[in-house]
Amino acid sequence: MNNMKNFGIVGGDKRNLFLSKMLIEDGYSVKICGFENLNSYSDLNKIYDSLKNIMSDTEYIIFPVVPTSDYKTVNAPFSSSNILIDDKLINLLENKIIFCGKKEALYKSNENFKNLKIKDYSSREDFMIFNARPTAEGAIYIALKEYDKILFGSNCLVSGFGRIGKVLTKLLNTFGCNVSVSARKSSDLLWIETLGYTPIHTNNLNNIEKYDLIFNTVPYMIFDKTLLSTCKKETIIIDLASKPGGTDFEYASINKIKTIHALGLPGKNTPYTAAKIIKKSIYKIIEEENL
Amino acid sequence: MNNMKNFGIVGGDKRNLFLSKMLIEDGYSVKICGFENLNSYSDLNKIYDSLKNIMSDTEYIIFPVVPTSDYKTVNAPFSSSNILIDDKLINLLENKIIFCGKKEALYKSNENFKNLKIKDYSSREDFMIFNARPTAEGAIYIALKEYDKILFGSNCLVSGFGRIGKVLTKLLNTFGCNVSVSARKSSDLLWIETLGYTPIHTNNLNNIEKYDLIFNTVPYMIFDKTLLSTCKKETIIIDLASKPGGTDFEYASINKIKTIHALGLPGKNTPYTAAKIIKKSIYKIIEEENL
Amino acid sequence: MNNMKNFGIVGGDKRNLFLSKMLIEDGYSVKICGFENLNSYSDLNKIYDSLKNIMSDTEYIIFPVVPTSDYKTVNAPFSSSNILIDDKLINLLENKIIFCGKKEALYKSNENFKNLKIKDYSSREDFMIFNARPTAEGAIYIALKEYDKILFGSNCLVSGFGRIGKVLTKLLNTFGCNVSVSARKSSDLLWIETLGYTPIHTNNLNNIEKYDLIFNTVPYMIFDKTLLSTCKKETIIIDLASKPGGTDFEYASINKIKTIHALGLPGKNTPYTAAKIIKKSIYKIIEEENL
Amino acid sequence: MNNMKNFGIVGGDKRNLFLSKMLIEDGYSVKICGFENLNSYSDLNKIYDSLKNIMSDTEYIIFPVVPTSDYKTVNAPFSSSNILIDDKLINLLENKIIFCGKKEALYKSNENFKNLKIKDYSSREDFMIFNARPTAEGAIYIALKEYDKILFGSNCLVSGFGRIGKVLTKLLNTFGCNVSVSARKSSDLLWIETLGYTPIHTNNLNNIEKYDLIFNTVPYMIFDKTLLSTCKKETIIIDLASKPGGTDFEYASINKIKTIHALGLPGKNTPYTAAKIIKKSIYKIIEEENL
Repeated sequence: MNNMKNFGIVGGDKRNLFLSKMLIEDGYSVKICGFENLNSYSDLNKIYDSLKNIMSDTEYIIFPVVPTSDYKTVNAPFSSSNILIDDKLINLLENKIIFCGKKEALYKSNENFKNLKIKDYSSREDFMIFNARPTAEGAIYIALKEYDKILFGSNCLVSGFGRIGKVLTKLLNTFGCNVSVSARKSSDLLWIETLGYTPIHTNNLNNIEKYDLIFNTVPYMIFDKTLLSTCKKETIIIDLASKPGGTDFEYASINKIKTIHALGLPGKNTPYTAAKIIKKSIYKIIEEENL
Repeated sequence: MNNMKNFGIVGGDKRNLFLSKMLIEDGYSVKICGFENLNSYSDLNKIYDSLKNIMSDTEYIIFPVVPTSDYKTVNAPFSSSNILIDDKLINLLENKIIFCGKKEALYKSNENFKNLKIKDYSSREDFMIFNARPTAEGAIYIALKEYDKILFGSNCLVSGFGRIGKVLTKLLNTFGCNVSVSARKSSDLLWIETLGYTPIHTNNLNNIEKYDLIFNTVPYMIFDKTLLSTCKKETIIIDLASKPGGTDFEYASINKIKTIHALGLPGKNTPYTAAKIIKKSIYKIIEEENL
Repeated sequence: MNNMKNFGIVGGDKRNLFLSKMLIEDGYSVKICGFENLNSYSDLNKIYDSLKNIMSDTEYIIFPVVPTSDYKTVNAPFSSSNILIDDKLINLLENKIIFCGKKEALYKSNENFKNLKIKDYSSREDFMIFNARPTAEGAIYIALKEYDKILFGSNCLVSGFGRIGKVLTKLLNTFGCNVSVSARKSSDLLWIETLGYTPIHTNNLNNIEKYDLIFNTVPYMIFDKTLLSTCKKETIIIDLASKPGGTDFEYASINKIKTIHALGLPGKNTPYTAAKIIKKSIYKIIEEENL
Repeated sequence: MNNMKNFGIVGGDKRNLFLSKMLIEDGYSVKICGFENLNSYSDLNKIYDSLKNIMSDTEYIIFPVVPTSDYKTVNAPFSSSNILIDDKLINLLENKIIFCGKKEALYKSNENFKNLKIKDYSSREDFMIFNARPTAEGAIYIALKEYDKILFGSNCLVSGFGRIGKVLTKLLNTFGCNVSVSARKSSDLLWIETLGYTPIHTNNLNNIEKYDLIFNTVPYMIFDKTLLSTCKKETIIIDLASKPGGTDFEYASINKIKTIHALGLPGKNTPYTAAKIIKKSIYKIIEEENL
């Protein structure tokens, strides 16, 4: 990164806050807006600035991991004023290099974003692999929080053997749980067996009565009415798949099956680590694309 | 247990509630009081009874793990009326076999308890060893809750290598933490080294700057002003030792060092497992003493 | 397997011997030849038969995992007579279903094998994934045998993060070794890091001085003169890659670097498990192809 | 160690050889005898000397871990001449500080040894705890060598939960074995359960049919005729207890039960580590006793 550029951080949660600190520690010049309500981080006072100043002073703009939820304003939970996603903002962003996650949300807010230089780190392999660990630890956290017994010795089902499934399964195993894993790909099933877990073809998943804890990582309906009707009262279902998840939450709620739709765990549970992963991805993009 | 006796449960938290269910599942007749505010456990309605009835109908009386905190009433967080520890209660308890933890609290409340048949399970080896695991999982839960980074790769210090220290150290290790353990006994230090952790003689513990997470299990002052003054701002101290703990909490608070005095973790985090351990101890006492 | 067929086993080592026992236990009729020198397995006496009889009585013929080494006779280490790979054998094999590993060796011996129904299990994914574990245990066995120190705490390098690399790395890690892994694929390197090992891009592998034990799983030259010249005297290189391996064995020998080219570990170290994996693959082929 | 003294090493196996190298590396002056047949260690040529010279030039004399087996000569497997344990040797040893293991063997050879300054490291706690790991790894080595299947998934019994039992059990567990442990002490049985293994009171050990691998660490008869008569043909018994072990080897041999009496594993399998442990103990003795 020869031509040192300045970073402007616009909105976001604790992750963007930690990110700003890390960038400063790495020697970058950083300005931030959208965090006025955070008094506790008084040491950030000197880098607060207005959106306008940020846009004129910095070349790299960092939006939140989920840049917007209402498609009208930038997500800024620590701010009470709105950062509007309008043509004025688009104009300010011209010639900037914009880093964010889930760029589709920006496109949906305003088509003109497609003309800007947006670098979405959230679909990168490094971002996804590195997030598997914080997500798995977050899932363990929720299990420890919600379950009335010790994890040690419990019967767990992990649905899906992708990135999160792999790391979570290993973690549950070292915790002393008996772990079954459901998957569809034959190589996944062979690996599950080789690693010492009980493999189940997803198609054969028709009774979940024996499981104390169920972790879903698959982003489509797995735990439907039929399957949920076989589970025992004490079972806890922790669904890690992005909306709408893989569980019939309505049926579960009516039948008093405890479910937790645990989204965005890295950001909520381990914002520092989440920020570090974002930083690494941003640096990698800058390096790879010579920005 | 040939001469099947009936159990009466007087007060306590979720542990005694789970305990009542387990005893019923095992075929015992059980009556409980001190849980009126718990509507959610409607299936227990038929075993609720008055203290008076319980005393006349049951031979085994089970008090809470910590039977009293104010030395005047039995601990009963799910009740709004008071179960007084007075001579009337003492009279009712004559000829009963009383199971509880920390009997000293009862003695302190009323000397006459010393004349009753009190079986304190809390000082038994089985109770203490079995509680190491839920305590260790509870400590991990708190670490996951409070720490902004993933545990994986963090630098941890465990102070003390007794029951809890041993289990917690192993658990942190399987989580991928770098674990140092401080102890005094030379055989403990040799074992710590043999098991692959970094041993530190407690006397040589004079700088804790490198640790992200510190777990204290030693019930006397270890983390005093001098030692705390060497720790970095982000460090979290989780003190598992019973009151007053092993940390100068006041100094820590003034200097914004994050401390959590985590007491009674098995009861709070894993009440079902805690109840099961109590049940096993009670059964063992009945068997051993032919009650 | 509706139309129960009979198995004839022709040559091979302990694996085919265990295989014959397993098939019998599963209720199949089995005949074997090429094991005359094995007196210790007297219970197999009744299934020994002549090649001719086997060919007339059985429909499934099982050759060795490596069917031939001299391209003239079937590998039969427990026999002193030769089973020739000639046109006579080819004729006898017509209409048979032949199971074996490495069919290319048969093709090279006699082109006419290409006209026969050969089912090579050795290139199947299940066979390869299931063999990763016995290979990894075999590698640990060799390390324990050759190394003068305990594995615990040793510095290990695993070259390659394929099937064997993944299982071996995990096993070394649970043994308490410090494990570095070299690979080329960026997703492999990301996973190596995520799982807690030290990732090294193969291109950056230019000094191996710090490693006590090196395990190569990559089937092309990695440990060449230049790299070997950087290793210390005590280092042991265990090369698991099939011939010619990934090590300059000649250079190593001249320079007194201890190398072991460990081939066919599952067959040598754990013939029972190896046989079981073959059996599972054969059954799977029969099921999938409706043989 | 202010007044630097010189070390003389008299006999022993590879351990004493490695020990001599380590002492030299630590800056000590070392002379050795009883290794004439070892040509491979040519770099030791310059420290070879006669017994007589060693006795006149060095103050610390190091004998083997097992100083004698015939009670007439010092154990010196790498020598073809005899180092006699006679009064002449005793005379030479006066005023020396003698380090060795199992001093009883010396006392039995010649009563006058009792008048010499013998420092036996083999009964020290550090020596015994540190040797648990190499012994456990050695036991795994033998299991991998002798067993026809992978260890992963095997049913193992460990008899005894002392130092070696503890480390071996953990190692088998991380290998993916199902581990049962027999012991007598109630606290051991509670710990075995807490750590996730199956506890068996030694008195209840009356059928061993289900075990593939049995490891004995208890130095008295456990696996007697009655118990051995229940084991299956394939079972392998690895007895780690010092002579006469805890197995009826004669009965086992007659009944073709495979047994291995594995003695002195640290010295045989990991002589370097064994030497390092000896060195640490010797240094500790010198420090503690101000020698």
